Amino acid sequence: MPALDLTASTTELTRQLVDVFSVSGEEAALADAIEAVLRAQPHLEVIRDGDAVVARTRLGRAQRVVIAGHIDTVPVNGNLPARLDDGGATLWGRGTVDMKGGCAVMLALAVELAAPAVDVTWVWYDNEEVDSARNGLGRIARERPELLEADFAILGEPSNGEIEGGCNGTIRVDVTTRGRRAHSARAWMGENAIHAAAPVLERLAAYEAQEVEVDGLVYRESLSAVRISGGVAGNVIPDECTVHVNYRFAPSRSGAEALAHLEQLFAGLPVEIVVADLAEGARPGLDAPLAQQFVAAVGGEARPKYGWTDVARFSALGIPAVNYGPGDPSLAHADDERVPVAQIERVEAGLRRWLTAG
Amino acid sequence: MPALDLTASTTELTRQLVDVFSVSGEEAALADAIEAVLRAQPHLEVIRDGDAVVARTRLGRAQRVVIAGHIDTVPVNGNLPARLDDGGATLWGRGTVDMKGGCAVMLALAVELAAPAVDVTWVWYDNEEVDSARNGLGRIARERPELLEADFAILGEPSNGEIEGGCNGTIRVDVTTRGRRAHSARAWMGENAIHAAAPVLERLAAYEAQEVEVDGLVYRESLSAVRISGGVAGNVIPDECTVHVNYRFAPSRSGAEALAHLEQLFAGLPVEIVVADLAEGARPGLDAPLAQQFVAAVGGEARPKYGWTDVARFSALGIPAVNYGPGDPSLAHADDERVPVAQIERVEAGLRRWLTAG
Repeated sequence: MPALDLTASTTELTRQLVDVFSVSGEEAALADAIEAVLRAQPHLEVIRDGDAVVARTRLGRAQRVVIAGHIDTVPVNGNLPARLDDGGATLWGRGTVDMKGGCAVMLALAVELAAPAVDVTWVWYDNEEVDSARNGLGRIARERPELLEADFAILGEPSNGEIEGGCNGTIRVDVTTRGRRAHSARAWMGENAIHAAAPVLERLAAYEAQEVEVDGLVYRESLSAVRISGGVAGNVIPDECTVHVNYRFAPSRSGAEALAHLEQLFAGLPVEIVVADLAEGARPGLDAPLAQQFVAAVGGEARPKYGWTDVARFSALGIPAVNYGPGDPSLAHADDERVPVAQIERVEAGLRRWLTAG
Repeated sequence: MPALDLTASTTELTRQLVDVFSVSGEEAALADAIEAVLRAQPHLEVIRDGDAVVARTRLGRAQRVVIAGHIDTVPVNGNLPARLDDGGATLWGRGTVDMKGGCAVMLALAVELAAPAVDVTWVWYDNEEVDSARNGLGRIARERPELLEADFAILGEPSNGEIEGGCNGTIRVDVTTRGRRAHSARAWMGENAIHAAAPVLERLAAYEAQEVEVDGLVYRESLSAVRISGGVAGNVIPDECTVHVNYRFAPSRSGAEALAHLEQLFAGLPVEIVVADLAEGARPGLDAPLAQQFVAAVGGEARPKYGWTDVARFSALGIPAVNYGPGDPSLAHADDERVPVAQIERVEAGLRRWLTAG
């Protein structure tokens, strides 16, 4: 089990977390390392749930806050181990942005702050980057909801060290064309399902994503093919082709409306559309008192969150929640994923200021 | 090892061969069974080469003929075991057409005809339905060419029991588009390689295959996507998409000309084209004396062969070769693959007549 050095800076701790490989489904080693650190803290009650780790203070404060972050990453693409660049100003590598910077800040403060101004439930969880059914926070919300009871929640998702409210919803559908197999030397005897997918890709390529204003924040949508597959063998006309489409929709639309929008996009084409995955968005929710205190303590102005994040799970539980973490979300999942060290330090300082305010 | 019953009819023997699973790369059991039958025949010299079996007479005849067929099939798709239908007139199942009917006729006659009018080299070989580099007949031609020495060759490929001359060539290319990864919640930060494949599929879908006359026979071409793949994860903008394209070209074109035709088809698109597989076609070659005798003995009129077959390998060795086997080639690889029993019997009778002609 990799040992984490908590005497180091949060940037150095981020590097340590990044260098423990934790692609979705393979988080056990990192969860073990985090759990070991927390178990050594007498002020924390620690609960392990699968590859999620929950640690909470029990100070009897009037209010409780959940501060949560996922420990998994998307697949590595030649961007590990982490490396410092720009004279130590930038940390490069898979997970630096999404979201081990946030996880490191949480871990440092969980250990440091034995008596925060509010009770805190810290949550590091697994499987955020895959089908929402596998999401570790979702699992806890389903099976042990009492662990998430709180008046306010903060997710350490990358937000450039600014507060980002709400989030877009996300729906994934399989758009399938069908044909009839035949030998590829007599193509005219079959029907080519891959050729039949041409108008599906055309419409996706031509689609112009919308911007939608919700509660004063403007949400930008995305609609993309994320996977395509089809074919049987090198000499067989394919009888099936599936395009996996991901639509990130503004929180003013319901999931059902998002599906209707996709069905409209492909209307008239001979395709079958099956929902693979759906998660509702969340409205900004910045009118809650603790949210307003937090914004005031941290400073700056709240922005919209484009990506779906687990703030929507808190939203569904009736808990107002915002995103607040280091890293540019547009670099999440990119091969050149990297976080400015200054943002890690800024989020650390912002959270400490709020959690230690009288 | 499955035992074959040579006392049965060739149709029953076809059914036995069909029921021994032999998808490309997994022909060992069927090769073993065929080898065992042949080793019991004192008039045949038997050579095993990988999962190919060669058996030849050594009668000192003035001329030698190779009669060859492949024992592998494309993947099974719910169409095994074989079944007789139409009151015993039709045999259904994977491989009935392509080409265990031909293999059964060969096996029956190899055993029956101890003293044919010409010396015969019978060849049952592996891996015809996959990349040509793995082809068992190609392997023998490369490594043991003396086994294929002959004045004429007949391939038992399905041809509706008619003689089909020459064959189209075949080339497979990977047509790849590239983009840049990003989180699918911020699609505008990346470049979607699957969307970029839209014009590739459009051109394939719009393409009209040509008909080309060669030496008096008209060859119909095919140009098809046979596979497509792209994508990294459900929330990542894909940076690569590959369309695997198979072009079956008339034997008047060289392989180089076929590639140039494909490059022309995709000209102006930001794609990379890499050749995965190429096999030249074969001109009809019906002017050879043994070919003319064979046509006269069997009767009917020679036709063009659309699909690529291993006649092109004999053509490359300077041996005139034709296709002659039971089954409708347009049903090869189809889910409803089936052969008329009458065609199996017709080919059996045709070959026997010619091989026993005085």
